[in-house]
Formats: sequence, C-alpha cells, structure tokens
Amino acid sequence: MAGGDENATTPDHTHPADVTVGDLGERALISLFTSAATTATSGDIVVGSGDDAAVFDAGGPTVISTDTAVQDRHFRFDWSTPRQIGERAVIQSAADIAAMGARTVGVVVSIACPVSTPATTVTEINDGILAATHRLGGRVLGGDLVAADQVVLTVTSVGALDGLTPVALTGAQPGDVLAVSGPLGSAAAGLAVLLAADNRDADECDGDDSERSNRLLAQHAEVVDAHRLPNPDLSAGVVAARAGAHAMTDVSDGLVEELETLAAASNVALAVDVSRVPRTAATTRAATELGESDDVWALTGGEDHQLLAAFAASDVPSGWVVIGDVRERTGDRALVSLDGIAAGDLRGWQSF
Amino acid sequence: MAGGDENATTPDHTHPADVTVGDLGERALISLFTSAATTATSGDIVVGSGDDAAVFDAGGPTVISTDTAVQDRHFRFDWSTPRQIGERAVIQSAADIAAMGARTVGVVVSIACPVSTPATTVTEINDGILAATHRLGGRVLGGDLVAADQVVLTVTSVGALDGLTPVALTGAQPGDVLAVSGPLGSAAAGLAVLLAADNRDADECDGDDSERSNRLLAQHAEVVDAHRLPNPDLSAGVVAARAGAHAMTDVSDGLVEELETLAAASNVALAVDVSRVPRTAATTRAATELGESDDVWALTGGEDHQLLAAFAASDVPSGWVVIGDVRERTGDRALVSLDGIAAGDLRGWQSF
Repeated sequence: MAGGDENATTPDHTHPADVTVGDLGERALISLFTSAATTATSGDIVVGSGDDAAVFDAGGPTVISTDTAVQDRHFRFDWSTPRQIGERAVIQSAADIAAMGARTVGVVVSIACPVSTPATTVTEINDGILAATHRLGGRVLGGDLVAADQVVLTVTSVGALDGLTPVALTGAQPGDVLAVSGPLGSAAAGLAVLLAADNRDADECDGDDSERSNRLLAQHAEVVDAHRLPNPDLSAGVVAARAGAHAMTDVSDGLVEELETLAAASNVALAVDVSRVPRTAATTRAATELGESDDVWALTGGEDHQLLAAFAASDVPSGWVVIGDVRERTGDRALVSLDGIAAGDLRGWQSF
Repeated sequence: MAGGDENATTPDHTHPADVTVGDLGERALISLFTSAATTATSGDIVVGSGDDAAVFDAGGPTVISTDTAVQDRHFRFDWSTPRQIGERAVIQSAADIAAMGARTVGVVVSIACPVSTPATTVTEINDGILAATHRLGGRVLGGDLVAADQVVLTVTSVGALDGLTPVALTGAQPGDVLAVSGPLGSAAAGLAVLLAADNRDADECDGDDSERSNRLLAQHAEVVDAHRLPNPDLSAGVVAARAGAHAMTDVSDGLVEELETLAAASNVALAVDVSRVPRTAATTRAATELGESDDVWALTGGEDHQLLAAFAASDVPSGWVVIGDVRERTGDRALVSLDGIAAGDLRGWQSF
C-alpha cells in the first residue's frame, strides 16, 4: 500500500496575486502540477505523471469513478478556500471508491478555469487535491488544465480491492441491518448557517448585523467546516467489505435518496428508525438556533460522504452505527419507511 | 479483449426538441446513460456502470489518462454535431492510452452543461461517446452529469498493456528513426476552411457569398470532416509497442510541440525532413485554395491524434512513416530541427 512519500510536500509556486493562469500558460502550470504529482515509480505506480498517461497496478481488478464539481453550484469561492475546494473534490470522488470496499490508489484531475483566474487559486486547488489524495494513501497520477468560463473540477479516482469482493448496491437481503459509517447532516447544517449569515448581511447593512453574522459563523464553525470540507473516514469502506457487507453506497445526495437507490437495486424494503441516524451535537445546536430540523438535515442533507451499508446483523463492524433494517418487498410496503411512515416528500439534494 | 456487444445499440431516447436537461433532471438522464453503458459483466468488466463505481480487470497494470473539451474553445455546436463532439472527446483521451502502447478498456465520462441544453443534445453527445468507445473495443464504465454555464466534457480513459512494456516519452536514443502513424495537418486544414467560410459569411451578406462559402465547405469536406472527427488508427500504438518502440506520444498539440517534449524528455536532438511528414492530398488542396502552407499545418496543427514514435531503424512497423531521426544532444545543436533549421518560431496549438 502506498504511504506518504517525498512528493507530499507543497511545491514552491508562489506567484504575485495579479499573475493569472493566462499569463503563466497551460504548459507551465501543467509542468508545475506534474512535478508536484507522482513522477516517481513506487508502490502501485508503474509510470507516474508527466507522460501521455500514467500506469498503475492495482494488483487485481481496478475500481473507477468520476465526479465533477462546478463553481457556484457545488462550491463558492466566497465560502471555501481554493485548497478546501480541491480537497472536497477528491473526497467526493474517492467516497465512491470506498463505497465498493476499495482503497484509493490514485486520481487524475481535470481543472477547467477562466484564463483570468489568479495562478495562486489554481495552484492552491492543486495543493488541496494533492493533500486529500495523499491522506487517502493515493497518488495524483495526472491531469488536464483547460480554459473555460467558470471553474469546473473533475476528479476520477481509481482503487484497489486487495482481494476483497466489490460491494455492489444489489446485495441487501431481508433480515440485514442498515448501518452508516458516521454522523449525517453536518454539511447541510453548515450550508444553512452560511446561507443565514449571507442573508443577515444582505438584509441589513449596519455594523450590528455584520457582527451578528460573524458571531453566527464563529459559534457554528464546526458545521461550517463540515460543509467546506467533509471529513468522513473512508477506510470504513474497506472495513465493511472485510466484514462481509452485503451492499454499500456513499451518502452523497442525502440518506433518503440513497436508501431509495439501494432499495430499488436490491429489490427490498428498508425501514429506518430516525432517532438512530447519528448526527453531531453541533448539528443539533445549529438546528435549534436557526429553527430548523436536524432530522431533515440528517435524512436529506447531501455531501457528508459517509457510507451506508447492509450487513448480516452479527457482522456490523466497529465504528458503524445501526439505523434500521432490511425487509421483504411486498406490494403495499413502501420502498423506504422512516419511523414506519413512507418516505414521501423528503428529498435529497440534486444537481439540477 | 472486449468486442462489440449488445450494449452497442443506440438507446431509445428521443425527446421533443423543447425538452431540456433541466426538465428531465439529472437522475433520469444518468439512469438513461447508465442503461446505455455497460451494465453487464463480461470480458474485462467485473462491475459495469450503475453502481457507485465500476470495476474492471486490465489483467495487469492499468493505463489512465484524462482530457477535457470545452464548448467554444475545443468545439463549436455550429461546426460539429453533438455526436461528433462526443466521439472526438473519446478519441482525444484514448489517443493518450494508445501512446503508451495500450488498448482502451473503457472510459468514464463527465458531462457538464447548462440546464437549458436540449436533452437530445446531451443524449447525442452520449451516443457519440458510446460509439467511439465501442469502436476502440472499450466500454463506457460510468459518468457524471452536472449543471454548468457551458458544456464541458471530461473523458478519462483506462487501458490494458496485455503484457507489453509501457512506451514512455523518455526512451528515444541517438540512432533511432522518428516515425508517425498517419497524415498530419488535416484537422488544421479543416479548421482553416471552417474559419474562411465563416469570414466570407460575415464579410458579405449577399447570396453569392453564402453560396461561395457553402461551395468551399463542400469542396473541402474531407478536411472539414477531419477537423470535426479525427479518425486516427489508434491500434498503431499497440503495433508500435509490439515492434519495440523506444518512445512514443500522440500528436495532440502539433508535431513541433510534441517533438520538443519528446526531445526534452529523452535528452536527445531530433531532426525532421519536412517533406517526409505525411499529409493528405486534400490538405494540400485546401492550402493551395486558401493561400496557406500545408507544411505549417502538418508541423503545427493539433488534434489529428496520430502517434509519433522513435524506433530502432530496423523496427519500424508497417503503417508507420519515417520522418526523421534521433541524434546526440550537444551544446550547440537545436533540440528540434526542421530541414536542418532550428524549430524556432513555429508553435503548436495551446489551450491558453
């Protein structure tokens, strides 16, 4: 397994604030990113970045998934640092690798951005991509940098199964229990706090309200940070596969949405006890302050990137929290029920 | 090796012209694309599309590369059909796999587009992606669809080496010959014809000029088609690797640009005989008509996606055309010389 290496250090790429991507040019930046990525051949890497393509050896089947994050839709530069944006894009993509029970071997990255983008913004995004990939034990294997009207980041992650069977969506069985790998709703809580702070700023222009807005952000820094940079322990995916999980997915679009996908793919019904769905105390505090429901955030909030899996009742590994069970699908039974009530109108986040 | 299968048929996805991506929604379109992609497990594919991630087995090391094409920078909807745009994005990415000496096993695709995009545009782009991938013997393994201000396509290709050693950029040796896998400059010629036709349309508004513009496009359909959809035989990459090529790359940014990259990576000097660089008769005819130089197109035009390689003189395989040779790098020798003259000011196409 690849561990930290000499490429993990932040490359020297300080540019004056007014130097843009267009000033430096595509080739110069790609060359900078290439030298910061894995040019060495070590561990799983046969040919590192800097050639037409990279070559890695997963030692067996390779798991692959791609995810795209778009400026002002999936992230905002006034809410997150470029580094956080890069880190989050990697976590979002690697969560799909973890959801198959695999470990991340590497990523390839496409950065599309306006030529007027400060060069430091792009190098900081790249630093975030490197840092998050290295934390996962993987390597940046290559990428592309192109001009576009807005920033669009596409991260493709590849993973290794190390002899484990991939955990598909289709294997949940009646009698299984449902479990999640960590608290849900934190990112949704953070988003709600950021929006509330924005609204207070916009509604009133006197100093008092700006102060109240800053106080709100400071008091709820934990959930705001969770929105900016979710921090799921993605090694829980390998743990679940080793424990013999029957089915698994990551919670990217909200728990209810993922439950419906899992129920349909496995042709089962799923029953969740809402009070058992884990959430942090900080999420509950934010809900109380804003007069919102932490149940709704935990059930429909996306982008926490925790994992959801079905296990035989005796197989739930340490660190996983049971939230419900898997039942036979019958004609009159809802695909997904929450505290016995069909999951009707609660809907997760979608890109459109 | 994966061949054509039952998934190669075009899915049924006709929508009225006024139905947009936003009307249908992300989930519905992704589900449509998933069913059109490889959900079956066959050949190299362990888990097809439709799960969190796909799983494939390259039977050894995996080759990976990613490439992005942006609307109005790399393609125009008034010049190319959505299907051609999808096909071209695959060829552009797969050429990097071929340049390592590998065959394409599959692709994952990200499509970012405005919610106002007609749904048929996106389904036709997807059809092109499917068709081009299947022609290469590969499978569409998954993808992402997100909202953005303009269309941005990112194709990540993965390939298998089938026991061959990957052909890096670094192995060219003094005494080798340089060869290319097919004619260069066709896409540049097509671009010049399209621009000339546009200018004639814009300069004068009477019917005669529109007719002249259409006649120009019709007379030079071969190069215009080559711009819209380059058609390199990417199996030449595997052929070159089997023949023992010392170094290889694909000509995406123009021959001179790639020669300079190859010379620097291998620490050699490269000498090219310009008259030996192959180009089609149609390219020469377009140059004559427009008063331009087919030498310049062949040397600097990008996006033909032919391959460039260095071989021992006795190893050049059938189908490859020798254009020059590899020499020792000495202090006063140009990295790249064309007919004995340093490749000074000729520059290839860059995204910025």
